[in-house]
Formats: sequence, structure tokens, C-alpha cells
Amino acid sequence: MEMLSNQARRVLKSEAESRYQAFVSRGFKIDLSRGNPAPEQLDLSRGLLEAIDCDDFVSSDGVDCRGYAGGVLGITDARHLFAPLLGAPPDLVIAAGNSSLALMHDALTFAYLHGVPGGAGPWIKSDKPVAFLCPAPGYDRHFRICETLGIQMIPIPMGPDGPDMDVVEHHAANPAVRGMWSVPQYSNPTGVTYSSSVVDRIAAMKTGSPDFRVFWDNAYAVHDLTETEHERVSSLIDACKQAEHPNRPFVFASTSKITLPGAGVALFASSAENLAWFAQHMNRRTIGPNKINQFLHVKFLKDMGGIESHMSRHRALLQPKFEAITSTFTKHLGGKNVATWTEPRGGYFISIDVLQGRARRVAALALDAGIRLTPAGATFPYGRDPADKNLRIGPSGGTVEELRLAAEGLSLAILLASTDDLPTAHSGTA
Amino acid sequence: MEMLSNQARRVLKSEAESRYQAFVSRGFKIDLSRGNPAPEQLDLSRGLLEAIDCDDFVSSDGVDCRGYAGGVLGITDARHLFAPLLGAPPDLVIAAGNSSLALMHDALTFAYLHGVPGGAGPWIKSDKPVAFLCPAPGYDRHFRICETLGIQMIPIPMGPDGPDMDVVEHHAANPAVRGMWSVPQYSNPTGVTYSSSVVDRIAAMKTGSPDFRVFWDNAYAVHDLTETEHERVSSLIDACKQAEHPNRPFVFASTSKITLPGAGVALFASSAENLAWFAQHMNRRTIGPNKINQFLHVKFLKDMGGIESHMSRHRALLQPKFEAITSTFTKHLGGKNVATWTEPRGGYFISIDVLQGRARRVAALALDAGIRLTPAGATFPYGRDPADKNLRIGPSGGTVEELRLAAEGLSLAILLASTDDLPTAHSGTA
Repeated sequence: MEMLSNQARRVLKSEAESRYQAFVSRGFKIDLSRGNPAPEQLDLSRGLLEAIDCDDFVSSDGVDCRGYAGGVLGITDARHLFAPLLGAPPDLVIAAGNSSLALMHDALTFAYLHGVPGGAGPWIKSDKPVAFLCPAPGYDRHFRICETLGIQMIPIPMGPDGPDMDVVEHHAANPAVRGMWSVPQYSNPTGVTYSSSVVDRIAAMKTGSPDFRVFWDNAYAVHDLTETEHERVSSLIDACKQAEHPNRPFVFASTSKITLPGAGVALFASSAENLAWFAQHMNRRTIGPNKINQFLHVKFLKDMGGIESHMSRHRALLQPKFEAITSTFTKHLGGKNVATWTEPRGGYFISIDVLQGRARRVAALALDAGIRLTPAGATFPYGRDPADKNLRIGPSGGTVEELRLAAEGLSLAILLASTDDLPTAHSGTA
Repeated sequence: MEMLSNQARRVLKSEAESRYQAFVSRGFKIDLSRGNPAPEQLDLSRGLLEAIDCDDFVSSDGVDCRGYAGGVLGITDARHLFAPLLGAPPDLVIAAGNSSLALMHDALTFAYLHGVPGGAGPWIKSDKPVAFLCPAPGYDRHFRICETLGIQMIPIPMGPDGPDMDVVEHHAANPAVRGMWSVPQYSNPTGVTYSSSVVDRIAAMKTGSPDFRVFWDNAYAVHDLTETEHERVSSLIDACKQAEHPNRPFVFASTSKITLPGAGVALFASSAENLAWFAQHMNRRTIGPNKINQFLHVKFLKDMGGIESHMSRHRALLQPKFEAITSTFTKHLGGKNVATWTEPRGGYFISIDVLQGRARRVAALALDAGIRLTPAGATFPYGRDPADKNLRIGPSGGTVEELRLAAEGLSLAILLASTDDLPTAHSGTA
């Protein structure tokens, strides 16, 4: 990038200011802070609720889904249907309520209060403070569960094929480190899918703690944004079995962004020993999940073919929205060296890195322009982005036209926030 | 009761044995161990699932029940509909997932890990072991949550109008005692409804711990077994407010035995301060409950009138089953001084007291005769009935004819187990 004179910089800044102010005066409003499926996406699951046949509520293994019986593992048909999302055989899958976050919260709380198989007892009774590895940027709600339990979080840099495994292996050797968060496919927010080599290293690495657990949130297992380049993370359960660490993985998924976020099915998979452990603790909490909802999902989605064709309908709605954002960024920010952004092949988010120290300023300017982003810093442990440069946007809720406008406004906010950092004749930055 | 000669006792015993063996040889089988609604009861909620209208999923306050939005408190319509079950205004009610047991588990776990409003911090950090008062016989799944968390349980004798309040007040004055379990209406298993005076004493009593919480499981709030003698426990929330202990009550209810045990709505109510506390912790666990299911409940049950007429249909199915049991007991055990049993006006259970030290023997004999009861002792903390005399049966799952037979077999088991204790000329017992 060419060096700018102080005067040129002043001109650019003034121009950025007037363009931004012109945008603000439009009174535009949009919320891009979360990955909220749009109403048209919810309409795709109309058939889920039409799948009710009031004379048929018995699962294939003879459980009347209306009653108490059936236990905490969920109905067999649902465990079979969703097993491929978890990379696990159906007998190692639990089909639960409507929230996979709740399963993660409960699994971590059970580990904390009661310990896990192969461990030395409740984590809360450890001499040392319990620590977790947190690839970042990552999912704020994961980090908040750790924060709630007082579990120390160690941020791990994310690269193009997953977390920096040298850093992961270094910290995992510390006995205080008991586990790790991961969104291994179309990661929130970077869109990265962990490579096989990363998965294998996670499965095989030596850990200082014998009861190390990987919380593997495969939230976007079938959530592709391209027609053909479907990424599929390899099975952590298989890799860990291979590496003779069968109890390492806690795998999660849900149908929140397949069917209905307000009424989906959450899923858990692990080793037989972990599954028995989890079921034992769940059984103290509840007699069982909502089985009617599981039954409806089975009737509606039928099999993996059904899931995949359903997901292609989501893709048709989502892909133009992501395209609207990224093409608008290219138009306004391309070649300006003030931001980089992802063009994800799946998942729900676009991750933007602005100039160091500018993310909070950009988010504030965007909010003043009516554009609500995920709070700057939220994608890092403790809500603190050390470089203050990462921003996350969830485009799914808006229309293509709204998103084009939002991306324009956000570009203007980024340009304005960056003018102080534009390279001048006296000092160069990139 | 007249004294028996040793010979008369031998004759009775031999007669009891042969009658019992004759019953065993029938090969009868029934499970009375839990309060499982029968398929005919589940059929009453056919309309719940037929209430789906695929063009209408917006609650009266504008929340699309299919999506993420709406938060952890549940939809307004459900909070309004169910508030009377909890004796609380709608704004102090949370409508949640399908399990009130899960809400109790979570509330106790949050208190344990994080403390409650008005307390000195997490219960787990107390110097003294945390203790809870457990009116007994009571609900085994309540006791198991305490046991899981290592909370010491103090059994409290149950009387005809609730727990023995002198004993409750005595123990509550101990700062280690942080709370109390209650099933205050048609109690599990005794059928007792707490009198107003008991409720007022619970609300007003001095507690040694400033953060004492009453876990008030109003599981049978509208579950009457008589046409006119409907008992209604008074509102603990009102009584505690009156007594200036507004944060004392944690009130729970569910529709598990109103609509569908496998797909109901669980409910929580408390003070505004407790509600905010609970919501804050729930919000770290989940984005929200299954709102579609709440919406269907609102459409189907409509209002308290709808709930009450629905419950009268349950009563019509259940009342003859309870009557079949108690009339058979009267026929076989009446005047024999070997057992007393409840004739409940509501709820799901009959509680039987056999001769001291005989409950486990009766349960084993019953099981050999094909009749599965709740395990003897289960209705007491730690599964230990100090007098070994209480048994619980849940008649709802059987047919009237099966239940008559089950009560006959159980009577024969009781008679046989009691023959060793029949008063003889040498030693009298009752």
C-alpha cells in the first residue's frame, strides 16, 4: 500500500466520516449478533409438525413416546437417524432435549462435581485450578460455561485447518488442563474445518491429565454453503479409539439449525463408558427427554438422505446472504488493507478481522448506524480479544437486500475506524 | 385383637402360605412401582398434538415459537395459563422443558455451586455439611438429588396434615440446614395435603440459615380423585411474602400427569429476586425451552377451566383403579391389624404401612408373585426406612381387573409376611 501524506489522510478521514454519517441518517436497523435462522428457513420444517399422526406414537423398539418409559438415552430411531452427525455408532448416541448447549453445560458440570471415568475424582476437588483450552476466536457460550464454573481458559490461536496444535500439545501436557472446546466443522466463527491431521493429533496427544476431555461441538455437521465443496470433519470418536484414548471425546450436535431452533433435538455421543457415566447423571436429573419431538424428527427427516436434501434447501436460502455480505465487503474494502473476512463454505458466521485495536470502535460505530454485531471480544475467553480485532456477523436472519446494506454500513464503519491507522508518509502500518 | 395360641398361629401361617402359593402359580405380572399414566390417559391428550396449525406459531406477545427468540422464561401465554398451579402471579412463573425434576435438580445444583440470593455464597463452600429436611415417606427422586450432591438428609415424620412442624422448626433452626423438600398436595406417597396452618408455619418459621429454601413440588396440583372433595394447598409464595420471607419458596409443577409424561411442560415460580437468579443461571445452560410444545399446551388446555375439565377425565379413569385396590385390601386385610393403607383424595399413589420390619419381606414376596412395587425403603432418605414398614404402589398403569388381582396378591404377601408377628398367647404385638 502506498504511503499517504498527512493531508491525504485527512481527506480520506473526512470522506469516510461523511459517507458514514450519510449511512447513519438512513435510520437502518438490523441485528446480526446471533445465528438466527430466518422465517423462510423455519418454514422448511413445516412438515415436521405435519408429521404428527395421532394414532402412531410408538417407536420402532416399542416405546410409546407419549409416556414416561424409554429412559434418558432417547428413542432408538432418533439415535440411529442422527448417529452420522456425530461420527458414532447409534448405540453410542444419546438423543436428548432441545439444546446441545445444555448437554455441554451438564457434561461439564457433572465432570466438575462428580469427576469422569478414568479421572481422580471431582474436578472441583483438584489441588490446582482446572483449566481448559479454548481455540479462539470461538463460541462465546462455550466460554461462558467455563467462566461460570471458575474454569481457567487458555486461548489457542486458530489457523486455517484448526487450532495451532503445537500450542495445544504444549498446554495439554499440563496436568491442570482437563479439556478443550472445539467447533470442528465450519467453526464458529471462522468457518474452519479441522483437518484429519489436526483431529489425529488431538486424539493421539499426550495429556498431563488422564481424564482430559475434548468437548467437540459439531454444530454445523451438515450445514454446507456450497453445492459441492462439502467439508466433513473426520470422526473424533474413531480417531480416539484408534489412538487408544476412547474416553477422550464428548461429541455434541443438534437439529437447531436443521429443523427448528426452538424445538429441535440435541445429541451426545462418546465411548460406552462415558455414555454410561453421562446417562447415570442425567437419570438423576430427569426421567427422560421429550420423545414426541424426537419421533416427529424421525418421521420428518427419515434418514441421512432426507437430512441432506433438507439442508440443501437451507443452503439455497443462506448462500445468497453470505454472498451479499462478502461481495459488498469486496466492493467497499477490497484492496484497502483495513480488514480481512472469511468466505465460509458452511456454518452460520462470517468472521472479520479489522486493524488491531479497532474492533470495539467498529462495533460501536456499526451500532450507531443501526447494525448490531456480536459484541467485540465475545469470541474470546472472558470476552477479551487481546488484539481487539475480531468481529463476528450472523447473516442468516436478514434478507439479501438488508444484508447488502448492512455490509455497506459495516464497511463504512470499518473505513472510518481505520482512518487513524492508515499509513502516512511518517509511519507505515498494515 | 385376640391372642392366638401357637397352634392357631401355625394354622394361620400354613393357610397364608398355601393361599399365597396358589396366587404365585397363576403367573400374574404387573408393575406398580411408578406413577405411570395408562394409555387411555395418554389418549385424553390427543387434542394436544392435533392443536398444531402450521400457519400459527406466534405467541400472543409476538414470539415465533419455532425460532431462538424468547429467552429462558418461556412464552407468556404458558406462564399465564399455568400460574394458578403454582399459586403465583404469571410474571413470577417460568415455563420450561418437559421435566420439573430437572428444574429441581438444576435449582439445587445452582444453589450448591453458586449460592442463592440472601445467602453467604455457594453452599459447597460452607464450613459445615449442608443438610436438607425430608418429610418421609416422600419422593425418592427428590432424595436422590440430595444424595448426589452429598447433601445430608434429615427425615421428618409425616402426619395427617403435613410434616411434623415441631420437628421441622427444631431442625430448621440449625444453620447447616439450608432447605426442605415438600410435595404439599396429595403428597407422594401419603396423599396428604398440607394444612394452611402447616403452610403458614413453614413460611414464618425462623431458620438458622438466612438462605433457607423450600423446594415445593406441587406435582399433583389439580390431580383430584374425588368429584367434589378437591383439596387445594394454600400458596406458599403468598404465605412467605406475608411472613416477610419472600425468597424462601422454590415452587415447581408440571403437566406430566395432565397431558403427556413424555412431552409435557415443567414450571417454576418464586420471588422476583429468585426468578432473576434462576433465569441467569438457566441462560448459561440454554438459549430457551421447547416453545412449540408450550404453544400446543396453551392451544389445547386454553385456561384453568380447560385444565379442570381435562383433569376430570383423568379422574374418571383413575378413581375406579384406586377403589379396586382399597376395596380389595379391605376385603382381605380389613380388621386383621397387619396393615394400614391410605385412601387418597388425589395424586398417584397408595401408601401402605405393614407391620414393623416387614416391608422388605412383603416387597420380595410380592415380586415373586409377579407384583413389582416401588422398592421398600425408597420413600425414605438414602432408601432406608428405619421401621421397614412403608410400601408405595402406583395403580395408574393397570386395568381395574389387574389391580384387583394385584391387590389380592399383595394382601396375601402381607398376610404371609405377617404371620410371624401375629400375637400369640405368649407375646402380643399390634
